[in-house]
Amino acid sequence: MRILVVNPNTTAAMTDTIAAAAVKVAAEGTEIVATQSRDGPESIEGFLDGAVAIPGLLERIAEGERSGVDAHVIACFDDTGLDAARALAAAPVVGIGEAAYHLASFVADRFSVVTTMSRSIPVLEQNLQRYGLASRCVRVRATDVPVLELESAAASARKRISVEVAAALKEDRAEAIVLGCAGMAPLAASLSAEHGVPVVEGVSAAVKLAECLVALRLATSKVGGWAEPHPKARGARFDKLVADSAP
Amino acid sequence: MRILVVNPNTTAAMTDTIAAAAVKVAAEGTEIVATQSRDGPESIEGFLDGAVAIPGLLERIAEGERSGVDAHVIACFDDTGLDAARALAAAPVVGIGEAAYHLASFVADRFSVVTTMSRSIPVLEQNLQRYGLASRCVRVRATDVPVLELESAAASARKRISVEVAAALKEDRAEAIVLGCAGMAPLAASLSAEHGVPVVEGVSAAVKLAECLVALRLATSKVGGWAEPHPKARGARFDKLVADSAP
Amino acid sequence: MRILVVNPNTTAAMTDTIAAAAVKVAAEGTEIVATQSRDGPESIEGFLDGAVAIPGLLERIAEGERSGVDAHVIACFDDTGLDAARALAAAPVVGIGEAAYHLASFVADRFSVVTTMSRSIPVLEQNLQRYGLASRCVRVRATDVPVLELESAAASARKRISVEVAAALKEDRAEAIVLGCAGMAPLAASLSAEHGVPVVEGVSAAVKLAECLVALRLATSKVGGWAEPHPKARGARFDKLVADSAP
Amino acid sequence: MRILVVNPNTTAAMTDTIAAAAVKVAAEGTEIVATQSRDGPESIEGFLDGAVAIPGLLERIAEGERSGVDAHVIACFDDTGLDAARALAAAPVVGIGEAAYHLASFVADRFSVVTTMSRSIPVLEQNLQRYGLASRCVRVRATDVPVLELESAAASARKRISVEVAAALKEDRAEAIVLGCAGMAPLAASLSAEHGVPVVEGVSAAVKLAECLVALRLATSKVGGWAEPHPKARGARFDKLVADSAP
Amino acid sequence: MRILVVNPNTTAAMTDTIAAAAVKVAAEGTEIVATQSRDGPESIEGFLDGAVAIPGLLERIAEGERSGVDAHVIACFDDTGLDAARALAAAPVVGIGEAAYHLASFVADRFSVVTTMSRSIPVLEQNLQRYGLASRCVRVRATDVPVLELESAAASARKRISVEVAAALKEDRAEAIVLGCAGMAPLAASLSAEHGVPVVEGVSAAVKLAECLVALRLATSKVGGWAEPHPKARGARFDKLVADSAP
Amino acid sequence: MRILVVNPNTTAAMTDTIAAAAVKVAAEGTEIVATQSRDGPESIEGFLDGAVAIPGLLERIAEGERSGVDAHVIACFDDTGLDAARALAAAPVVGIGEAAYHLASFVADRFSVVTTMSRSIPVLEQNLQRYGLASRCVRVRATDVPVLELESAAASARKRISVEVAAALKEDRAEAIVLGCAGMAPLAASLSAEHGVPVVEGVSAAVKLAECLVALRLATSKVGGWAEPHPKARGARFDKLVADSAP
Repeated sequence: MRILVVNPNTTAAMTDTIAAAAVKVAAEGTEIVATQSRDGPESIEGFLDGAVAIPGLLERIAEGERSGVDAHVIACFDDTGLDAARALAAAPVVGIGEAAYHLASFVADRFSVVTTMSRSIPVLEQNLQRYGLASRCVRVRATDVPVLELESAAASARKRISVEVAAALKEDRAEAIVLGCAGMAPLAASLSAEHGVPVVEGVSAAVKLAECLVALRLATSKVGGWAEPHPKARGARFDKLVADSAP
Repeated sequence: MRILVVNPNTTAAMTDTIAAAAVKVAAEGTEIVATQSRDGPESIEGFLDGAVAIPGLLERIAEGERSGVDAHVIACFDDTGLDAARALAAAPVVGIGEAAYHLASFVADRFSVVTTMSRSIPVLEQNLQRYGLASRCVRVRATDVPVLELESAAASARKRISVEVAAALKEDRAEAIVLGCAGMAPLAASLSAEHGVPVVEGVSAAVKLAECLVALRLATSKVGGWAEPHPKARGARFDKLVADSAP
Repeated sequence: MRILVVNPNTTAAMTDTIAAAAVKVAAEGTEIVATQSRDGPESIEGFLDGAVAIPGLLERIAEGERSGVDAHVIACFDDTGLDAARALAAAPVVGIGEAAYHLASFVADRFSVVTTMSRSIPVLEQNLQRYGLASRCVRVRATDVPVLELESAAASARKRISVEVAAALKEDRAEAIVLGCAGMAPLAASLSAEHGVPVVEGVSAAVKLAECLVALRLATSKVGGWAEPHPKARGARFDKLVADSAP
Repeated sequence: MRILVVNPNTTAAMTDTIAAAAVKVAAEGTEIVATQSRDGPESIEGFLDGAVAIPGLLERIAEGERSGVDAHVIACFDDTGLDAARALAAAPVVGIGEAAYHLASFVADRFSVVTTMSRSIPVLEQNLQRYGLASRCVRVRATDVPVLELESAAASARKRISVEVAAALKEDRAEAIVLGCAGMAPLAASLSAEHGVPVVEGVSAAVKLAECLVALRLATSKVGGWAEPHPKARGARFDKLVADSAP
Repeated sequence: MRILVVNPNTTAAMTDTIAAAAVKVAAEGTEIVATQSRDGPESIEGFLDGAVAIPGLLERIAEGERSGVDAHVIACFDDTGLDAARALAAAPVVGIGEAAYHLASFVADRFSVVTTMSRSIPVLEQNLQRYGLASRCVRVRATDVPVLELESAAASARKRISVEVAAALKEDRAEAIVLGCAGMAPLAASLSAEHGVPVVEGVSAAVKLAECLVALRLATSKVGGWAEPHPKARGARFDKLVADSAP
Repeated sequence: MRILVVNPNTTAAMTDTIAAAAVKVAAEGTEIVATQSRDGPESIEGFLDGAVAIPGLLERIAEGERSGVDAHVIACFDDTGLDAARALAAAPVVGIGEAAYHLASFVADRFSVVTTMSRSIPVLEQNLQRYGLASRCVRVRATDVPVLELESAAASARKRISVEVAAALKEDRAEAIVLGCAGMAPLAASLSAEHGVPVVEGVSAAVKLAECLVALRLATSKVGGWAEPHPKARGARFDKLVADSAP
């Protein structure tokens, strides 16, 4: 099976990080197609970046549909554009945030999230509330490590993240940690070893869940809010992507 | 004071309907600047349309900021792009959906929403949950009248809406009705007279609430998820609009 | 339009404070009629005071109805007697607590309340839960400044309030502050300037919202719990006020 | 022990009904002191009646305190004035509504309430939400039998109530029924026999729970919202009752 | 009336403690039959112990049914096996955890629980959520005093519990304390005297509530999840106990 | 990897059905070890059967641990004994109910459950509430087809299930269906084809999720309620199984 993994920002180094995390856990027989938006923000930190990342992201999803991928992964922890992508695509779409929250729920009664910037906290809280898993998450914590510093200053970033993980275990009585940024994927194993609790990372979680859905032949329901697009004018760029994704 | 009212779709007739509803209730001394997106969907029905409407909408918000408007109204009942617009703008931003829900809460313990297409139901339910007002809304009901038929086939559309209002009063024990589409603005008064309950319409509600916020000098808090954009590359179109909206 | 603003305690100095806050924000053409209960508690601090304030309050609401005011404001942050007043009056009724919570929701994802006495905390929490806005309020904080000290010892009171505002911003990660007492109205602007976040005060919020409702011709729904009083004996004092408020 | 049972309306026949229900279940050694308000509404149907019943009710509670009763029961299903009575009294106070909901929770996972007038539905829903037991109550149903018809037209009233009980079992999948009016007390046993499920009635439930609290020496906590009244002027009538209830 | 009080662990000293607490509050005319499981864990600390305690517990409940007791009390604060026991028995069944939570709700708006081991916290939180009373409980606190130390090292255990009670009053603003273990029953009165708030203990609470239910002839509804067992093979031990409990 | 799939009832035909569903979706390299309890109920319908199934189930989990399986699946839709199994095992444990709910959340905003007997409804509702996914489930529906009829009278059972699926789509506006019994596994594909929506079945869902957790090296957190058993006497049968599962 082929899984498209879209990094909805434009930073190639981050796409590489994401691709590595995806490939590492993919089953034999799963081909990971990692890509990034052609245009949009260089990193996604907060509501505005998430909104402006949508056109570039949807374009990649549409191209993936046209090329016949079996599933799509949106590799931003905010699950940017997830509802729109599900409406656009026939193949299942998995956000790395939701993937991590759901899998954490199988190994911990209560988890905390450790993310990058404070301004992302309400984005994630809003998602958790919608998914229904807010009751499983004790707290969303920010390190105020900017997304791109995860690449450029990895050592100091890891240190600040580890401090916040420790605080979550002590103050929140969290039983597991969810890492709240695709760029944190390489840190999960070592943080888990260091702190002695499960540390869930979204890229790998989403790839495995996408494999599950494909194996079980479960695709997005088309009878509710994710129904196929009505034909209508949406402007040149979006008309093209709707056409691209048409069955 | 000047209030920018943005119709985030590209249908001029609908902008006219919205402008009329806004002007009708604006206080003396309030100037309504009604506009519409330069590009984007011709109507907003569901998650995909809402997502692809965002670039055109944010552009208008940014232009409004640059021109010094006192407040912004997003005239789509889905409150499309509301969080991103609040992060972008210094002036307060009001969505017509949230405006209607909040005002309905002052005149009814429980209300129902009557909207256009079924695929919009989860969009509105998600908003209600986030705003906290889901407990005040008994049910979101769809008429499956397409948005643009509100303009082109007004009489038959009104009839189907009235039938759904009656059902909401009887089956949901709703005490007021919220009309779930900007294009329904002209129907509020007559539906209220016909059914004997308050019928709240979002465009007029949002204009009055925007006037309130300006009069009380209440503007969007910048210490949380709606903080000012970090400087970063977001692609030409979005870099321009962030620059336009800079103070 | 004429808006009746009832201070449901018997302290004239507090009525003056309330009247000043109301007049300051009233639109041109809005006449503020500020009054206070003829009998009842000198200040409202907790459930008992709120209960015993009801007869005096409802009397003023009934007199307002008879005199044809366009809207009523209950100027106690506990929203004392709000449901009963809505059942009694045809004109819309706005509580200053609910007004402040709703307006705060347009400028902050999460707010904290800073009020007077600890015993009022459950009163406000109960209101927030009922209005649906408990999910938007991080915490209700008491300063243990008695209501009447806001008049008699304004400087020291302000200091303690400011300390609590700072704590709310730091510990609760609140994005805005709601001031939880009518007597705090004069402090809103300076606290907002000092702390750099929106500070919402209920009297001005309620006056503007009352203006909104009147402008939009939205009055209390009479098909649910706020239906017109059934004819029945209620004792001399209350029979008179029901008669006074009859259309 | 002595338990004061206050009917907060002024209809003596209803006090007799309530007294009979209370005496029937009281333990040996429990003295029931049944009384009614000196002034106030002849029946309590909705928010306004509940509010205007408060002075007469609190007066009786204060007299009970002065006379040294061991516990108080408020015999209106709306739990009118419960918070104020708890602040006033040192002895425990039990509302018949809350008593019925709590006991029903021991014999049914989910129950429905069958009450008198539709306008009381939001009063009861608000209480259920506050008590935390809204999740246990499937639906509050009104028969639109006026309270006083329970006395004057008992046979036809019982018939309509029985129809609604049947509907609750079938449509709500309720496992027990809570009768939502003190005046329905005589019907509980026969309705339970007829429908084969527990039927909980508040007066008897409250008397037994009051006995429990007294036996366990559990009295209202005075460290929160039910703390003892601060000394202050509250008007002649209320100053007297606060003085009466002082320890 | 006869009330069976089952200690679902196998420690006789703890059964004695429980029996003493039960007898102390039982009404004249109530016979307490205290017993313990024949096999199972020596103490119940966490999910595993709770699960393995079920066969021994249900056996005692079945024997109680056969012998015609009027009500059953499950004397483990986790309310171990409560749903199964209710399905098995015709007589009402009361768990000491639920009994304490419900009674605490009559004397405190918000309470905290002080229990033994940390691993029991999610057990109790799960119960509170299910009963609907999670909104009344501020926090479940563990002392990490093992259950059996309550017997063997009573003085030091009491000290640690008292420290946690003080923390609950200060940090949680709790208005009452619920003691989260049957073995803490002897401490309730002195802790209440020491801290000046109601301290609710489950064994006595459950006995009084069982008396209530019997007096009011309220027994478990048999139309939902607690319906009588279908005839089927369940293995020798369980077939016997189902047969024993058959009417 | 080896996954133990335990049918916690004693009906061998049902174990065969479960094994077939598991094997069908297992990845290459995954060995399914399907087994059933040695003793316990022949089918699990409601709280009592669930409780009495626990000893037999835990015994199989302990044997699985000793034999070094990589993950455990509890193949009863009630997720019987899930918490106790997680405390007992080091390897991850997945219930087929939770597996189905979580996967359904990726393909439907709202789903309904179609299960066997009415008495199981509260069991499943309680699980959904605890997992956090109650907000995603519109309704749990019973067909009142006994579990074992799924084997013995497959055709008529399927018909009744299909009728209920149709009702869920129409009345609940569900977007997907979750089949609420392990014995329904063979029906998922044909019901999905017939009704045009995703139909999620728990056995296959749990197997794939167990594979995910193993691939991602995510095992149950041991710092909360699922911590390793304390050493203590639990009776011969349970002492043995705790010993068996010790690392």
